[in-house]
Amino acid sequence: MKFEVTILGSSSATPVHNRNPTAQLLNCNEKFYLIDCAEGTQQQLIKYNIKAGKIDYIFISHLHGDHYFGLIGLLSSMHLNGRVKPVKLFGPPALLEILELQFRHSETVLKFPIEFTALTADVPKVIFQNADLTVETIVLNHRIPCTGFKFSQQKRARKLIIEKLEAENIPIEYFPLLKRGLNLDLPDGTVIRNEDYTTDSEATKCYCYCSDTLADGSYLPQLKSCTLLYHEATFLHELLDRANVTHHSTALQAAEVAKQVGAQQLLIGHFSSRYKTLQPLWEEASSVFKNTVLAIEGSTITI
Amino acid sequence: MKFEVTILGSSSATPVHNRNPTAQLLNCNEKFYLIDCAEGTQQQLIKYNIKAGKIDYIFISHLHGDHYFGLIGLLSSMHLNGRVKPVKLFGPPALLEILELQFRHSETVLKFPIEFTALTADVPKVIFQNADLTVETIVLNHRIPCTGFKFSQQKRARKLIIEKLEAENIPIEYFPLLKRGLNLDLPDGTVIRNEDYTTDSEATKCYCYCSDTLADGSYLPQLKSCTLLYHEATFLHELLDRANVTHHSTALQAAEVAKQVGAQQLLIGHFSSRYKTLQPLWEEASSVFKNTVLAIEGSTITI
Repeated sequence: MKFEVTILGSSSATPVHNRNPTAQLLNCNEKFYLIDCAEGTQQQLIKYNIKAGKIDYIFISHLHGDHYFGLIGLLSSMHLNGRVKPVKLFGPPALLEILELQFRHSETVLKFPIEFTALTADVPKVIFQNADLTVETIVLNHRIPCTGFKFSQQKRARKLIIEKLEAENIPIEYFPLLKRGLNLDLPDGTVIRNEDYTTDSEATKCYCYCSDTLADGSYLPQLKSCTLLYHEATFLHELLDRANVTHHSTALQAAEVAKQVGAQQLLIGHFSSRYKTLQPLWEEASSVFKNTVLAIEGSTITI
Repeated sequence: MKFEVTILGSSSATPVHNRNPTAQLLNCNEKFYLIDCAEGTQQQLIKYNIKAGKIDYIFISHLHGDHYFGLIGLLSSMHLNGRVKPVKLFGPPALLEILELQFRHSETVLKFPIEFTALTADVPKVIFQNADLTVETIVLNHRIPCTGFKFSQQKRARKLIIEKLEAENIPIEYFPLLKRGLNLDLPDGTVIRNEDYTTDSEATKCYCYCSDTLADGSYLPQLKSCTLLYHEATFLHELLDRANVTHHSTALQAAEVAKQVGAQQLLIGHFSSRYKTLQPLWEEASSVFKNTVLAIEGSTITI
């Protein structure tokens, strides 16, 4: 099952040096989840040849412009392009008011429904589930209410040991029950033990997206056993004071978080405009957590 | 005196085919006037190496997103980049409410003042004057209230015929009065006739910007003697019905307007996403009004 994230923007605050502010597109089993949507995100989708119409779920972490100013334009273009299927939108409560005010003054009546879930940044919550994923909020510590998002794959069905089932003439109608992990007590007293006829499914994977935050450790318990951790790394550690004042993190801190929670891989982004090249940020993070990659626009990371 | 316009976007409705929606930058005597500000305008400024900090005046024609969704991002970046000097902003009354709602929820207190003038689209009005320009609204006919803008150079001072003034020992203190076109009655009864000592200044030029409009002729009187006319040309004339329904113009109609008002040059833009190449639009307009140019992003047209 495909589970990968494509970087559409990785700049903090303002677009610079050909870097766009934050947006990412998660593909889980060919369903598309947009995470944050800075100004220019729809242009980035065009640039990377991704059809906006495929996106059914949008998650906005907080109401700083570098994370959502592109949303109104993206939704408007979906409308103009004739979309009718709903968009599930998750974000801070005021987000809907901001969108509606602008649609009202342009006299736009959307051709598709926005199914909005207002997020609060107080306690972690499960906000969405489907056959592929469970999405929970991560409570971050930023200057304004801000949530990260944890995308966990659903536990998959167990794998049948087909040769053995066939050799022992186990009736096919039992197979779905075995896939679900059940032991079966047959009317004749036979017991079919699940462990004899199935093997465990692939381990489920998890993508954690930590948007803008002070690296204060408060959200670490939620990141345990994360497969891929995206963590903002706005500054080099020599600017720790600046990170603390602005409620952001350094590349070193992002790496320490990845190490502490046992992530398999770390993806860093949200780079300050002062960094024309990103190599120093990568080197700093890699010195603590080896398996670190930079959020480079247009790149796709398999989870 | 420099008087030129640079195209930052010329797509209608949505960004497509490497065309951004509408924005233009007018340079008049090294003062910078932004006209409309679609999503991605700040990225376009970066792309064309234009410093956003130079822009002191912003004019928004109407509240369709393809004309203003980039404004909040541009103003936010000016703030983040430490701007303190005011921005004079002209646009529909609700524009300020839309900006303020977003600044409030991001807890942004701008470091610079926005001096806002609310525009109504009922009758043409002079909305701004400085030493270089007078700006008037043009009342257009679109689906929602929409104003164009007429930028007229100020009448310049008359040119002194220095050799003659010196030969006749005319005192230097009279020169500023002569430049302003006055005749002078001296105490000794001498009359210094302005026309003997000065020549007319260069003809003043005028840039008319007709944003989104049905080409119904209602606004033609305001465009008389226009030097450069920008007129939207969303469709080819074969789609006149579509233009009428959406309150837009065809390339042919834009050219007819230019011809009727005696413009020196026509600039067409706001091209529908259906046109991958713009040559047919140019050919259609040129067949009626020869001196037509396309609004190509990054190009600068001298007025």
